[in-house]
Amino acid sequence: MKVDLRLYAILDPERTHGRDLAELARAAAAGGATLLQYRDKYADTRDLVARARAIKAALAGTGVPLLVNDRVDVALAAGADGVHVGQNDMHADDARRLLGPQAIIGITLKKPEHVAELAALPVDYGCIGGVFATASKDNPDPPVGLSGLAHLASSARTTRPGLPVGAIAGIDASNAAAVIGAGADGIAVISAIFMAQDVKAATRNLRGIVDASLARRASGTER
Amino acid sequence: MKVDLRLYAILDPERTHGRDLAELARAAAAGGATLLQYRDKYADTRDLVARARAIKAALAGTGVPLLVNDRVDVALAAGADGVHVGQNDMHADDARRLLGPQAIIGITLKKPEHVAELAALPVDYGCIGGVFATASKDNPDPPVGLSGLAHLASSARTTRPGLPVGAIAGIDASNAAAVIGAGADGIAVISAIFMAQDVKAATRNLRGIVDASLARRASGTER
Repeated sequence: MKVDLRLYAILDPERTHGRDLAELARAAAAGGATLLQYRDKYADTRDLVARARAIKAALAGTGVPLLVNDRVDVALAAGADGVHVGQNDMHADDARRLLGPQAIIGITLKKPEHVAELAALPVDYGCIGGVFATASKDNPDPPVGLSGLAHLASSARTTRPGLPVGAIAGIDASNAAAVIGAGADGIAVISAIFMAQDVKAATRNLRGIVDASLARRASGTER
Repeated sequence: MKVDLRLYAILDPERTHGRDLAELARAAAAGGATLLQYRDKYADTRDLVARARAIKAALAGTGVPLLVNDRVDVALAAGADGVHVGQNDMHADDARRLLGPQAIIGITLKKPEHVAELAALPVDYGCIGGVFATASKDNPDPPVGLSGLAHLASSARTTRPGLPVGAIAGIDASNAAAVIGAGADGIAVISAIFMAQDVKAATRNLRGIVDASLARRASGTER
């Protein structure tokens, strides 16, 4: 499944100022998010399913796919379009078996070993991180920085040519162009979208930066 | 799916003295457990799947089905026989849809409202609790006691005739006979099995008490 990773909006109830998840999802889609992930490490399963369903309904007609972080059961129950799995989440082989060939499955890439495994994994994108320090997640690993990102993205392109590769952690309007310049096909964003007062405007601004940076890269002005 | 609920052994890594889960499962099966549940509120999904697989493999040939607490994704990935869902876990309708008609699905019954909903739920057993106080789980609700158990079990029999009804929380060799006497078709046990030094012997002892109590009830000596 070909995934548009340009602006990957990650909706985590802990980083929303307590606002309605469905409304936030709709605002991000309206602002130009190309993919949305629902990530929730605390809710009970019944609430996870209800929230994922509400977000999926909010995205109806927008063309923006909904992925669920980690939880294949929640994705299946809510009719989401797939899952994002970290290195300690369900193995991509198992997720693919349970979700079927049409589902979108993405994976977190933190280290060269993870990139090396990409060749054999049934995933539709990789997301490199953490690129910068972030307040959104407890992360025991040090950020890879722009040079680490460039190295991992380049390796991923060698291992799995054509696989979209995004970047995550601490990305906002101030550094998004540099992230794309370092080789990412898109940015995954939590706080810079969903902690913004005007989610739609913040999304639109980021999307503009990404599109311009990708165009510059394609025209050879950078890299 | 007809479920034998006489001795339902619940394996929670927090209540095992750190021993190997597969070996504990095998010991419980050898001692006469009729159903086994893997419950784990802390492990990452990847570990949950690996542990559930190991337990399922350990039960091969014993005839003892393996259920996973809450997590339908883990049950599906590990090839478990079903799930046990609490009132905040995935709705039984969703679990049935994802797991199929052959899976075993059980539900926790804490209150008369839960029993009243039984009529419409695609579940194979109910488990009433907490009957007594327990160290195995944070439980905000007060124990229902033997009289509450008797009342809920009787209501469940009216709502869903023939549905096996178990009991959970604080049940051990000292009170198992009273629990069966109050109307439970079986007992769900955590610590009295898996915190025991000799798991097989503890299981066998409990199974003997349950069988004798069920026989007494069937012959009309009690109840």
